[in-house]
Amino acid sequence: MGAAPRWQPLAQTRTYERVLDQIEEQIMSGDLGVGDRLPPERELASMLGVSRAAIREALRVLEAQGVLRRPQVGTGPDSGSVIAGTPSLGLSRLLRLHVALANFPIDDVVEARTTMERASARLAASHATDDHLSHMRRLLDRMDDLGLSREEFNDLDTEFHVVLAEAAGNRLVADMTIALREAMRHTLLAAFGKIDDWADAAAKLRSEHRAVLDAVVAGDGQAAADRVEAHIRRFYRTVDAVGR
Amino acid sequence: MGAAPRWQPLAQTRTYERVLDQIEEQIMSGDLGVGDRLPPERELASMLGVSRAAIREALRVLEAQGVLRRPQVGTGPDSGSVIAGTPSLGLSRLLRLHVALANFPIDDVVEARTTMERASARLAASHATDDHLSHMRRLLDRMDDLGLSREEFNDLDTEFHVVLAEAAGNRLVADMTIALREAMRHTLLAAFGKIDDWADAAAKLRSEHRAVLDAVVAGDGQAAADRVEAHIRRFYRTVDAVGR
Repeated sequence: MGAAPRWQPLAQTRTYERVLDQIEEQIMSGDLGVGDRLPPERELASMLGVSRAAIREALRVLEAQGVLRRPQVGTGPDSGSVIAGTPSLGLSRLLRLHVALANFPIDDVVEARTTMERASARLAASHATDDHLSHMRRLLDRMDDLGLSREEFNDLDTEFHVVLAEAAGNRLVADMTIALREAMRHTLLAAFGKIDDWADAAAKLRSEHRAVLDAVVAGDGQAAADRVEAHIRRFYRTVDAVGR
Repeated sequence: MGAAPRWQPLAQTRTYERVLDQIEEQIMSGDLGVGDRLPPERELASMLGVSRAAIREALRVLEAQGVLRRPQVGTGPDSGSVIAGTPSLGLSRLLRLHVALANFPIDDVVEARTTMERASARLAASHATDDHLSHMRRLLDRMDDLGLSREEFNDLDTEFHVVLAEAAGNRLVADMTIALREAMRHTLLAAFGKIDDWADAAAKLRSEHRAVLDAVVAGDGQAAADRVEAHIRRFYRTVDAVGR
């Protein structure tokens, strides 16, 4: 008598995953590039021999990643999606969800954020355009308004860090920096709400932001990086002190 | 006579996006956490008053982000997906595609990668466990084999950087570092293939890796960061020289 037969469950591969793999392979090989249009859903389904539902599931995944742009309003379902390049939304959404799920502890996020903000500030010191500098100045001027609510202050604060990242002239560094800052928006706003002496806390934040901008304007990348790191780390110590 | 009526096209919101928004809101508010099970597709569809196809499209997006784990083989379509925390796969996939689409120029990726690898190496110097260190040593020993193909060498090289990132003890920094290294795998392998004096190039890479590991073992975070940066930048200059 031979050994008992052994049955191993096969790994499940769903149809939409095989559709996704085919599209991804063509992107990786360069056969599909930004601006190229995919065949309409109906045609894709018949070429690949799968249901339109499976095609649609694969397209949704690529849309959420910012790899596909949905067809324009009014062009109908048969016009085909266009390969796009909007990584930042997909990246922000992904990081925001995983931070909320505490798959990444806050201390780890702070460390990663510090790393990216240092790089952004250093690069901004040599790449910021006049438009970036005046945009940041306008934001800091608006933050001087003592009548701002904490939420309004937080929005302007977020925007300052976004423009600083964009001034780095490196889209990937900027997108990663922005995604990390966005992932912290709720945590930071909650912390803002718990601070007793808000006037004092806001004053510190204002002068730290000015110091970062001064270093960027002076083209001093090292100082810009050091100041933005000190700013972030000091504020998180405050957040820790008030409780998260 | 009044002004001419003005009609603005309404922004299209697709059904699956509203399903996605509801699930995301519950994750952001903390009502859904890792390990929680979503209701089965059929039930979700009836609670939200939408088609099962729309539910499935939303679930696919969350699976691709590593936010949902598909139900286990054999549990059937009615068991409901489980909220999961596997950000690294979703992050790698997203960055890899956008790098391939050249939405991020290679120089920007190198800069971002250098930033993350510096942080990983610095943190690894104080957090690496004995297991990490011996794993890295074993990989470098295997890379000493002169009979390795360039592809095998590249795989071990990738793995060395992955373990170094994991030794940092910061999941987010590690995931971002790994995703960036993975995004470069094809570019680097293509470059490996074009180098004439491969023996010499491999020898340089070997000694640079050893120098990084020595600094990590010595607990010297600054040296580890500087050496990994020098290693990456020197190699990309070689890549530039042979053409991409």
